[in-house]
Amino acid sequence: MNGAAIYHRATDSFCYSPDGTSLVIRLQSAVDDIVSIQLWAGDPHDWGRRPEADGGAWHWRCASQELQKIGSDGMRDFWEIRWTPPYKRARYFFRITFRDGSRYDYGEKGLLPTSPKAEASPTGDYWNAFVFPYINEVDVFKAPDWVAGTVWYQIFPERFRNGNKANDPAGTKSWKRGPVTNHEWYGGDLQGIIDGLDHIASLGCTGIYLTPIFASPSVHKYDTEDYLRIDPAFGTDEDLKNLVQACHTRGIRLMLDAVFNHCGKTFGPWLDVVEKGEASAYKDWFHINAFPLFPKGKDTGDSRDANFETFAFTTRMPKLNTANPEVREYLLKVAERYIQEFDIDGWRLDVSNEIDHVFWREFRRRVKALKPDAYIVGEIWHDAMPWLRGDQYDAVMNYPFGNAIVDFLLTKDWSKTASDFVYRISEISFMYPDRVIRSAFNLLDSHDTDRIVHLLGGRAMAKLALTMLFTLPGSPCIYYGTEYALEGGGDPDNRRCMIWDPTPEEEAFARFVRSLIALRREHWSLCADGRRQYVTDPAHPGFLGITIHHDTDRLRVLINRDEKPIPATVWKGLLGLDPSESVQNLLAESPL
Amino acid sequence: MNGAAIYHRATDSFCYSPDGTSLVIRLQSAVDDIVSIQLWAGDPHDWGRRPEADGGAWHWRCASQELQKIGSDGMRDFWEIRWTPPYKRARYFFRITFRDGSRYDYGEKGLLPTSPKAEASPTGDYWNAFVFPYINEVDVFKAPDWVAGTVWYQIFPERFRNGNKANDPAGTKSWKRGPVTNHEWYGGDLQGIIDGLDHIASLGCTGIYLTPIFASPSVHKYDTEDYLRIDPAFGTDEDLKNLVQACHTRGIRLMLDAVFNHCGKTFGPWLDVVEKGEASAYKDWFHINAFPLFPKGKDTGDSRDANFETFAFTTRMPKLNTANPEVREYLLKVAERYIQEFDIDGWRLDVSNEIDHVFWREFRRRVKALKPDAYIVGEIWHDAMPWLRGDQYDAVMNYPFGNAIVDFLLTKDWSKTASDFVYRISEISFMYPDRVIRSAFNLLDSHDTDRIVHLLGGRAMAKLALTMLFTLPGSPCIYYGTEYALEGGGDPDNRRCMIWDPTPEEEAFARFVRSLIALRREHWSLCADGRRQYVTDPAHPGFLGITIHHDTDRLRVLINRDEKPIPATVWKGLLGLDPSESVQNLLAESPL
Ligand SMILES: [Ca+2]
Ligand SMILES: [Ca+2]
Repeated sequence: MNGAAIYHRATDSFCYSPDGTSLVIRLQSAVDDIVSIQLWAGDPHDWGRRPEADGGAWHWRCASQELQKIGSDGMRDFWEIRWTPPYKRARYFFRITFRDGSRYDYGEKGLLPTSPKAEASPTGDYWNAFVFPYINEVDVFKAPDWVAGTVWYQIFPERFRNGNKANDPAGTKSWKRGPVTNHEWYGGDLQGIIDGLDHIASLGCTGIYLTPIFASPSVHKYDTEDYLRIDPAFGTDEDLKNLVQACHTRGIRLMLDAVFNHCGKTFGPWLDVVEKGEASAYKDWFHINAFPLFPKGKDTGDSRDANFETFAFTTRMPKLNTANPEVREYLLKVAERYIQEFDIDGWRLDVSNEIDHVFWREFRRRVKALKPDAYIVGEIWHDAMPWLRGDQYDAVMNYPFGNAIVDFLLTKDWSKTASDFVYRISEISFMYPDRVIRSAFNLLDSHDTDRIVHLLGGRAMAKLALTMLFTLPGSPCIYYGTEYALEGGGDPDNRRCMIWDPTPEEEAFARFVRSLIALRREHWSLCADGRRQYVTDPAHPGFLGITIHHDTDRLRVLINRDEKPIPATVWKGLLGLDPSESVQNLLAESPL
Repeated sequence: MNGAAIYHRATDSFCYSPDGTSLVIRLQSAVDDIVSIQLWAGDPHDWGRRPEADGGAWHWRCASQELQKIGSDGMRDFWEIRWTPPYKRARYFFRITFRDGSRYDYGEKGLLPTSPKAEASPTGDYWNAFVFPYINEVDVFKAPDWVAGTVWYQIFPERFRNGNKANDPAGTKSWKRGPVTNHEWYGGDLQGIIDGLDHIASLGCTGIYLTPIFASPSVHKYDTEDYLRIDPAFGTDEDLKNLVQACHTRGIRLMLDAVFNHCGKTFGPWLDVVEKGEASAYKDWFHINAFPLFPKGKDTGDSRDANFETFAFTTRMPKLNTANPEVREYLLKVAERYIQEFDIDGWRLDVSNEIDHVFWREFRRRVKALKPDAYIVGEIWHDAMPWLRGDQYDAVMNYPFGNAIVDFLLTKDWSKTASDFVYRISEISFMYPDRVIRSAFNLLDSHDTDRIVHLLGGRAMAKLALTMLFTLPGSPCIYYGTEYALEGGGDPDNRRCMIWDPTPEEEAFARFVRSLIALRREHWSLCADGRRQYVTDPAHPGFLGITIHHDTDRLRVLINRDEKPIPATVWKGLLGLDPSESVQNLLAESPL
């Protein structure tokens, strides 16, 4: 038996309440090491007396149920049970039967051999248990109900559509195909998004995420000059109000980008510090280690040469001191303003994991007080559990899911087979409560990455990637232009002008995307909450069959990464289907 | 290699900042499975270009250091490194060399074989890393500085000393030795504690924890009737002020007990609900599932027969609805009042893990705003990580340490040898950040457990237990009377009257306790922060030698649980001492 591989802790993804009444309890072990696991559980205060015939002793009342193996990453098995404590309080331990026949009771003291008197006394040591003391509704992670059924469309406003030539910056270039830089203007604006809404709606998207729109000198606007003003090249307050209304009329929700980790170098308070130095009233708004700000006598652009902290090392983005109550209040008022005055539906939080938890807890309190079903999504590329405990975000940008898809489709060394992909998805899913996974913001690409068509080297692979993303739990997002298989490598190439004159091939790709989105929306509940069965085959390492069940709904997803076609008789055999069974292809232009 | 046993996550005890500048990074593995672990770490944004001769490629800058094995629980090894990120941001992965010669890079994607080009490219997959995004000072766990050097004395006020006969309840009995019940009054009060302060100070204690003192019908006062009034049998506001002042004059801090999970059945708002039912303005102050409160027509005493939630199942203690802002505000004002008006130094929080985290976060904010170095200690008997992340408590009542001592001294099946004890202490220590461990409230017994002398069956064993507890990191506590080896089993027997006429044997025990406390106070910093080396011997399973080093200070703790004496030549040999080396016994009446 591999006792060292057993892991459980009564917190985070290992023990949580999804709903305020039940608990999900999980345990991980070495793969194929365990035959069965019983959860022995009861109320910690529920003691009873045995019958006189049994000696009449006091004992803790508990009962047992079997855990289910819900996945594996090839090295470890993942186990789970859902249990409803009768009085919201839970005390439990695991009785594990290992493959070698040994039996242990596992609790906080570790693995103690199961007592020979186990039936009479459910645990050899009362203290060798775990406790989830009380399910407090107010601590339960809750994301807005609408999120799991939403399909997102991400827009980089400068490059989506020019709806108003009057607000174009000087030197604005003509809309075009092909590479762009971060120092060119193409005139995209909020009116352009309003004008493009019918297109977005026709795709079936029901949410729009805009990268920043507040006044800033750059095309990307991640270097805010004024949080309280729409960038004049993008439009006016009126335009934003119109956009929100036009979205809501179409049943589309709008999410803005909150860049609160840092400001731009033209932000008023920062200009004041640059001008007045230590005398500035705003000097504690930033992370300044010493004055002068630029000990080399000039701004080299690299904060390693300066006396203040920044985003990454760019002096164009001084880091805000969110622990300063003045700064906190200022930014929270910004967050409130766009909900109160503009009725936006969510905030995407830029570089959010470099800001303190205290700030985010207060942010959630204030935002949810104004709009309880606002969606709060952190930009976190890595493990985000500390922000997803119910007190801070509803979701993060779930790059790990997208990465798993890409790694498999690119046949990376560590992801050669469909099994590797299933392992990785299982592992990521096991790392978070299911409610977190079903509300995650899932994406393959963004303004920060290569575009998916570029990354995967073509449209066929991009279709597979999109299909895989759209049938996972979580709220999937299309980066603008992906519906037309828009090309582009890393920043700035991922910020090309939107295609408004699609070629027939691009139209064909869009038909595929539309049918995928329609499929997703029809079966969103299945994607969010369905039970998945995976079929893989060593002889066809690029083949993945996923069958998802939910209530009476059922969907099969068939992926063949490798070039060689897999005959219908083969994949039908793998799926256990009768060779003569007719199968309906639900996706346009995706040959079976 | 046992890959399934590798565990790390960039949160809680596995990655934290102890001080706002450095990070402690930990990993667990199967015992004896790993030869070495390198941490490859750098700033996530710190990219550089390789020399032209190397191809000039961009790469993430990182450097490596070795982790140290800091402990084991016999099944798993515990590894740690302390590293200071140059810009507060950390990205890292582990390069692990297993005993079988295999090498893997371990990150969020799991164990990927170390790339053959590892020297040129530090990781085969940039995303296979962990991230601790930014060390925000405001999120760092901080307990008051004074705690680690404090020795506590816990008092059950009704049974400590009667200092004022005028406030004795009707029927108060004479002070006595021997068993008591929870339905007898002996007249103990705050004046008695003031009168006993010289005794407590003479022991060397520097903190006093009082079980509840607010108005309540019971002897234990965990069923509060009025949070704003000192129980009349215990005294007046004036008495509490005098007590605090008398403590502070002697350099003793005073901690009160906050019973906020539930009230007593005579609490005003509850009486209102009982009287008016659904019409009561206080009906949302509690957890009421339906009316009438008592569907059987009477209060059976068991809340399983009632329509409201309680502490455990006793209808004498209705559970308070701390998610109700009115209740929250009421209780927080109580917490503030005793700090503002009485200058108490800490709150011990009864049944604190059954109250929501939102409440405790606000509690911490409000209490620390009034008294930044107030000590906040939760009553949690089990894993308390979710309350010790820096936003809620400073400590919990650390029963697991006490349990480990008792299990070893009682030669429990799972703790037969001193090695088992060392394993258990290592494991508990590894579960928490070191700052949490050094501020823990350590205890062997309390008003809720058997007294230690009773539990261990005698004074000799109790001396060993106290010695072990007092040399561990954390803030140790003596339960009143233990200085005289006061006897007593579980509640109510653990609430006997304090001894004020000690016998010579009891005096002798107190001399031992005094010398132990003096030793602890002299070497508190070594106990809190010292490095420990353990010596055990299969031939003498009851022998434990602990050498603690800190700066130039050094202390050896020698424990022999078993009856048979261990000759000096043997234990000196085990400790690596010269047989002729003279050793000074620092504890009174504890023969070497
Ligand atoms: Ca324009
Ligand atoms: Ca009295």
